[in-house]
Amino acid sequence: MKILVVNVNTTETMTKSIGEAARAAAAPGTEIIPLTPYFGAESCEGNLESYLAAVAVMDRVVTYDGEYDAVIQAGYGEHGREGLQEMLDVPVVDITEAAASTAQFLGHKYSVVTTLDRTVPLIEDRLLLAGLDRRLASVRSSGMAVLELESDPERALEAIVRECELAVTQDKAEVICLGCGGMADLEAKVKERTGVPVVDGVAAAVTIAEGLHRLGLRTSKVRTYAPPRPKQITGWPITTNR
Amino acid sequence: MKILVVNVNTTETMTKSIGEAARAAAAPGTEIIPLTPYFGAESCEGNLESYLAAVAVMDRVVTYDGEYDAVIQAGYGEHGREGLQEMLDVPVVDITEAAASTAQFLGHKYSVVTTLDRTVPLIEDRLLLAGLDRRLASVRSSGMAVLELESDPERALEAIVRECELAVTQDKAEVICLGCGGMADLEAKVKERTGVPVVDGVAAAVTIAEGLHRLGLRTSKVRTYAPPRPKQITGWPITTNR
Amino acid sequence: MKILVVNVNTTETMTKSIGEAARAAAAPGTEIIPLTPYFGAESCEGNLESYLAAVAVMDRVVTYDGEYDAVIQAGYGEHGREGLQEMLDVPVVDITEAAASTAQFLGHKYSVVTTLDRTVPLIEDRLLLAGLDRRLASVRSSGMAVLELESDPERALEAIVRECELAVTQDKAEVICLGCGGMADLEAKVKERTGVPVVDGVAAAVTIAEGLHRLGLRTSKVRTYAPPRPKQITGWPITTNR
Amino acid sequence: MKILVVNVNTTETMTKSIGEAARAAAAPGTEIIPLTPYFGAESCEGNLESYLAAVAVMDRVVTYDGEYDAVIQAGYGEHGREGLQEMLDVPVVDITEAAASTAQFLGHKYSVVTTLDRTVPLIEDRLLLAGLDRRLASVRSSGMAVLELESDPERALEAIVRECELAVTQDKAEVICLGCGGMADLEAKVKERTGVPVVDGVAAAVTIAEGLHRLGLRTSKVRTYAPPRPKQITGWPITTNR
Amino acid sequence: MKILVVNVNTTETMTKSIGEAARAAAAPGTEIIPLTPYFGAESCEGNLESYLAAVAVMDRVVTYDGEYDAVIQAGYGEHGREGLQEMLDVPVVDITEAAASTAQFLGHKYSVVTTLDRTVPLIEDRLLLAGLDRRLASVRSSGMAVLELESDPERALEAIVRECELAVTQDKAEVICLGCGGMADLEAKVKERTGVPVVDGVAAAVTIAEGLHRLGLRTSKVRTYAPPRPKQITGWPITTNR
Amino acid sequence: MKILVVNVNTTETMTKSIGEAARAAAAPGTEIIPLTPYFGAESCEGNLESYLAAVAVMDRVVTYDGEYDAVIQAGYGEHGREGLQEMLDVPVVDITEAAASTAQFLGHKYSVVTTLDRTVPLIEDRLLLAGLDRRLASVRSSGMAVLELESDPERALEAIVRECELAVTQDKAEVICLGCGGMADLEAKVKERTGVPVVDGVAAAVTIAEGLHRLGLRTSKVRTYAPPRPKQITGWPITTNR
Repeated sequence: MKILVVNVNTTETMTKSIGEAARAAAAPGTEIIPLTPYFGAESCEGNLESYLAAVAVMDRVVTYDGEYDAVIQAGYGEHGREGLQEMLDVPVVDITEAAASTAQFLGHKYSVVTTLDRTVPLIEDRLLLAGLDRRLASVRSSGMAVLELESDPERALEAIVRECELAVTQDKAEVICLGCGGMADLEAKVKERTGVPVVDGVAAAVTIAEGLHRLGLRTSKVRTYAPPRPKQITGWPITTNR
Repeated sequence: MKILVVNVNTTETMTKSIGEAARAAAAPGTEIIPLTPYFGAESCEGNLESYLAAVAVMDRVVTYDGEYDAVIQAGYGEHGREGLQEMLDVPVVDITEAAASTAQFLGHKYSVVTTLDRTVPLIEDRLLLAGLDRRLASVRSSGMAVLELESDPERALEAIVRECELAVTQDKAEVICLGCGGMADLEAKVKERTGVPVVDGVAAAVTIAEGLHRLGLRTSKVRTYAPPRPKQITGWPITTNR
Repeated sequence: MKILVVNVNTTETMTKSIGEAARAAAAPGTEIIPLTPYFGAESCEGNLESYLAAVAVMDRVVTYDGEYDAVIQAGYGEHGREGLQEMLDVPVVDITEAAASTAQFLGHKYSVVTTLDRTVPLIEDRLLLAGLDRRLASVRSSGMAVLELESDPERALEAIVRECELAVTQDKAEVICLGCGGMADLEAKVKERTGVPVVDGVAAAVTIAEGLHRLGLRTSKVRTYAPPRPKQITGWPITTNR
Repeated sequence: MKILVVNVNTTETMTKSIGEAARAAAAPGTEIIPLTPYFGAESCEGNLESYLAAVAVMDRVVTYDGEYDAVIQAGYGEHGREGLQEMLDVPVVDITEAAASTAQFLGHKYSVVTTLDRTVPLIEDRLLLAGLDRRLASVRSSGMAVLELESDPERALEAIVRECELAVTQDKAEVICLGCGGMADLEAKVKERTGVPVVDGVAAAVTIAEGLHRLGLRTSKVRTYAPPRPKQITGWPITTNR
Repeated sequence: MKILVVNVNTTETMTKSIGEAARAAAAPGTEIIPLTPYFGAESCEGNLESYLAAVAVMDRVVTYDGEYDAVIQAGYGEHGREGLQEMLDVPVVDITEAAASTAQFLGHKYSVVTTLDRTVPLIEDRLLLAGLDRRLASVRSSGMAVLELESDPERALEAIVRECELAVTQDKAEVICLGCGGMADLEAKVKERTGVPVVDGVAAAVTIAEGLHRLGLRTSKVRTYAPPRPKQITGWPITTNR
Repeated sequence: MKILVVNVNTTETMTKSIGEAARAAAAPGTEIIPLTPYFGAESCEGNLESYLAAVAVMDRVVTYDGEYDAVIQAGYGEHGREGLQEMLDVPVVDITEAAASTAQFLGHKYSVVTTLDRTVPLIEDRLLLAGLDRRLASVRSSGMAVLELESDPERALEAIVRECELAVTQDKAEVICLGCGGMADLEAKVKERTGVPVVDGVAAAVTIAEGLHRLGLRTSKVRTYAPPRPKQITGWPITTNR
C-alpha cells in the first residue's frame, strides 16, 4: 500500500526525518511518500500557523497526482484532520490521535511531552475533540522551540527527558507520547530514564493506517465527513489558483 | 468604536445581511464594517469549507488596512477564531460562542437550530471546545442548505420552526440559538410558535464586543494567544502572495 | 435603561462601591440603582449567609417600587439568582457568571481569586451549575475576609496579587476574575504583576445586562423560570410581613 | 436518638405524613420529631419557594429548643442543605441525596419521578451538585402538582406510575426514586407495575441518619461547612426578629 | 438480620479483624458472619489478585449453606461486586462504595488513603464506575503493603496519617476514607491530626446493609443484575468442582 | 509473530470462528493460536459469567506452555483485560477496546450493537473505564442471545441489522462496532443496509497487536500493571491446583 505522510510545516529536513520514521515503522510492502506543503510556516507553534497548515496540507494532498491508500497528517496538535477526512475516501490518521490511541493500550494513563508551552492548549483541545482526554494525565512542554531541537539537541534532550520524568512521577503517566520529532536518541533516552513505553506518533500512525487498509475500512461518509457538496469555491486549491 | 464583521463565505448578499443585523444590534456610535473573504466557498457546510474560511477570514482581516476595535467572525460552527485571537490585540468574538453564552443568561438549557445535518457535529465540537456544552440541550438541523434559505424561504421557515418546537418540547431547551441567518421573519416566527427567547449570534456578538471594548478588555497574550513567533511563513497572507 | 444592582450583604459602604463600579462600566443613558437588602449578614462568607442573602435580595427587589429593566445580583458565588429569574420578567445577571462568561472570550482558561478559602467551594458549585466549569483553571483564595479588604488594604492587596500570580503560572489561567470587590488599586496591580486581563464581575454584568436589554431578550418563561404558581406563601415578602 | 424531620412547606398534613413515613422506617429507639417551618409556601414547586424554604428550614431548626442528634431536610430537590450543615454539628441528610445514594446500591442506573415538569431542573441541579448524576437515567415528571396528589389521588397515581414505567423501559432505570410523597399506595403500585425497587427519600434518609449517628460521624468542619464566622446578621433568625 | 462479611484475601487474621469491625458497627440483633475465601491471594494488591478475589468471593458465598440477609464484600477497590449482585437477591454492599457514599454526606470533597501506589488506579476505576468520582478529591497511597500494616504498625501509622494530612491541606478533602483496615489506632490518630471525619468502609457497609434490609430493598433484577440465564457453566463453583 | 486469541467462553465452535476471523485479518507471518478456557460458561452474558471468564482466560494463558508475542481477549464487554496486562509482558488487546479505538478513526461517533440488553451496561462500563465513551453514540442490543446467533441466524441477522439502522439514523452513529461474532453475512449486510463502516473487534485487535509488536511496544510496568508482588496465592492457577 502507499501512504502519504504529510508534514505540516515547510521545513524539508523535517519532512525527510518524518519520512524516515514512517519507513522504519512500516511493514514490508508499504510505500511511504513524504510530502511538504507548498506554503505555510517553517514550524507550527500556534493557531495561525496551525490553521494555515490545515489548509496547506489539504492543498498539498489534493494537488498530489499519484495514487495512495491512506494519508497521515504528521503534525502534533494541529488543526485539519477533519477536512482531509471529508475530502478523501481513504483513511486519514492524525499523529496526535494515533499516539494517544496507541498509548491507551499500554498503560492506565498517558502524558504528552511537547515543545513550547503555548502549544499545550492546542494539543489538549485536539485530544478533547478526539475523545481521548479521560486517560490523559498531562500535556507537558519542554520549553524548547521546534527548531531548537535541531540547533541545540543536547539541551533539548535534557529538557524533554526532565518533563517525561515529571509526567511519570508527578502526573502518574504510565506511557509517554512524544510530541516533538526529529531527535535520534530521544526515545531511547526517555525509556531509559523513565522506564515507561514511549510512543512516537508517526510510527503509531503508520501501523494504524496499515491496519485500517488491510481491513478495508474507510472513513464513514454518512454525515460529518460526507464529501463536500458541489458548490463554487473561489481560489481553491490555493496553489493552482494563484 | 469600529467592529469588523467578517463573513465566512464569499456570498456578498450574505455579508450584506450580516452587516445589517450587526448594525441593528449596535449601540449609537458603533461603526459596523462588514467584510467578505477574498477566497473560499459560497457557503460553509463542512470541514473543508470551514478550514478554508478560517484562513480566508484571517487573510481578510490581516489585509484590511483601516483601524478597528474588535472583530466578529460571523459563521456558525466554523473553525478559526483561535487564529484571529492570536494574530490580533483587539477582542475577537465568534457568533456561535456569543449566541450560546448569551442564551445561558436566559434559561436553564439552550438548543441550536441550524441548516444541514452534516454541520451539527461541527457546532457541537465548537461548543465543546468553548466549554459551553453542559447546558446545551441539542443541536438540531432543519435539513435546508444555507442557500436554500434564500431560494425557498417559506419551506425553510417551516422546517426551522418545526425543529425549534421539537427542541423546546422534546429536548427541553428554554432558549433557541439560530444558527442560520438571513431570514427576515425567522426570529419573530420562532418566538411566536415556541414562546422562548431567540438569540441571533451576530446581534449577541455585537453587544459582547462592545462590552469588552468599553471595559478595556483584550485577548490575553500570556499563553495560547500570544503573538505568533517571528519566523518564515511562506505564502502568507494568501491574497498578497499570489 | 435602569438597572437594579443589589448587594448581597447589609454593609452600605459596599453597596456604594458596587454602585460606583457599575456606573463606571455603564453606557451613557444607563441608570444604576444600587440597593442594600433589609436583612442578612454584613458580609457573605458561607452558606447560611448566602442563603439568607438569596432571600434578602429577592425581598429587596420585590419590595422596590420603582421601574427597572434588569437586575444584577452583586455577590460572588452566592445562591439566589434562579429565584430572581423566576420572579421577574426582566433579565437577571449574577456577577459570578457574568465574570466567567466574559473571561471565556479573552483566554483559554480562567481563574477566580476570592477572599476566604471557605467560599471556594461555593464559587466552584455555582460555576458548575452555570456550566462554566470546563475552562475554569482554579478558584483560589487570598485568605483575607471580605471586611479585611477595607481594614488592611495593603496586606490584602499583596495576598490577592500573589494568588493571581500563582493562578497564571501554576494553574495556567490566562484571565483572572476578581471575586472580591471594593479595592481601588486591585485591578491595575493584578494586571501589572501578571500581564493578564482582569475581569470585574460588576462591570461585566452591567455590559451584559445592557446587551440583553438592547436586544430585547428576557428570561425564558417556559419551564425552569416560569412565574411562581399562585398559592399561599406565608410571611412573604419577609420585610412587609413582620 | 432523636431526628428532626423538617418539612419544606407549611402544609401541616404533609408534615404529618412525612413524620409517619419517617417513623415507619426508623429503628426501635429512634424518636422522630416532625417540624413545619413558620413561613414559606404551602408547597415548593420552584426556585423562589425553594430558596424561601431553605431559609425557613434553617430558621425552624435554629429556633427549636430541644435536643436532637440529626436533621433531615424533607423536600425533594430543594435548596438549603448546605446551610444546615454549616450551622449544625449533627449530621444533616437531604432526602433527594439520600434516595439517590440508596438507589445506587440497588441497580446500575436510577430515575427520579416527581410532580411538575418545572421542578425537574431543580432536582437535576441538586443531583449534579451532590455528585450523584453519573448514574442518573432521568428525572421525569408526572405533570401533577404537589397538592393534587391529595385532591385527585387516582389520576395522580396513574400519571406517576406511567412515568415510572417509561423510566424503566425507555431510560433504562433499574431503580426508581419517588420525588413526591404522601400517597399510601404509590410505592406498592410502582413496584407491581415496573418490577423495580422503589426508594422513598424520607425512609432512606432516616436509615442513613441513624447509621451516621451510630458510627459517631458528623459533618466535617474544616472548610465548606465550618461554623459561620462571628459577625452581625440583621434579622436572623427571621421568626424571632419580627 | 444476618450479614455475610466476606474478606477478599485468604488471611484469616484479616477476616477476624474485619468481622470485629463489622460487629462494632452493627445494631443490636445484627449477626455478623465473617467468611474467608477458599482460594486466592493472601492480600489483594493488583488486578490478578483482585479478579481472583472476585471469583473466590462469589464461590465462597455460593457454597455457604446458611441463611443470610445481606452480603458485604470487604476489600478496598476490588472487582466483583456486580457478580454478587447478579447471583443473589439480598442486598450486596461493597466497602469502597459504602465508604465513599457515606463520606459524601459529611463534606464537600473526600479522599481515599490506601496502601500501595499500584492500587490507586483500581480504586479510582471502581469509584468512577460507581459514579462516586465527582466529589473525590484524591486517592493517595501510603506506600505500605497490606501485610506491613501488621508487621510494622508504627511506621505504617505515620505514613498513612501523613497522606491524610496532605489530602486535607493540599487536595482539599473534608472527609477521609481509609482504604486499609486492621489497625487499632488508625482512625483516632487520623481524626486527631487532621480534624476531619474518618470513614471506615466496613462499618459504613454494615449500616447501609442494615438500612436496605430494614426498608425491604433488594437488588433490582430487571436488567444488569437479572439472575444468570440457565446455561452450562463448567467448573463452577470452583471449590465443589475440583 | 504469534498471537494467542483467547475465547471467553467454553464453546469450541466459537473459538474456532474467532480464530478464523483473526486469521483473515492477520498479516502474512502472523500465527494465530486460538484458545478455549478450561472452565467457565458456554456463553458470557452477565457479570458472574464475565468474572469467571476473566479468571478462566488468565488461567488458560498462564498454563499455555508455548511462546507468544501478544494476547487478544476475544469477548465483548468482558472483565479481565487488566489482569492479563499485569501478568504478562507482551501486549494485551481487548476486542471491545480495539473495535472502539478503531471506529474512532473512521467517524465522528460510533455505536456498538450487541446481543442481549443485559450486556449493554457491561459494555458501557468497559468503554467508560477505557476512556472511549465520549464519542460513543449508543450501545444497542438485538435481543438475541449469543447462542441464538447460530440456531436462528436469519432472525438474528434481521434483528441486528435493524438496531444498526437505528444507531445510524437515531443515535447519529457514523461507524458500527459489532459486539456479536460468528455470523458470516453480518458485516456485509450491515454495511449494505446502513452505508457505514463496520468494525469487527477480533480483526481490529489483530492489527493493533501486530502494530504494537512491530513497534516494540509493551505494557507499561511502572504502576497499574506492574508484575504481581511475590506472595502466597492459594489455588492458582485454578486448573493446575484442582
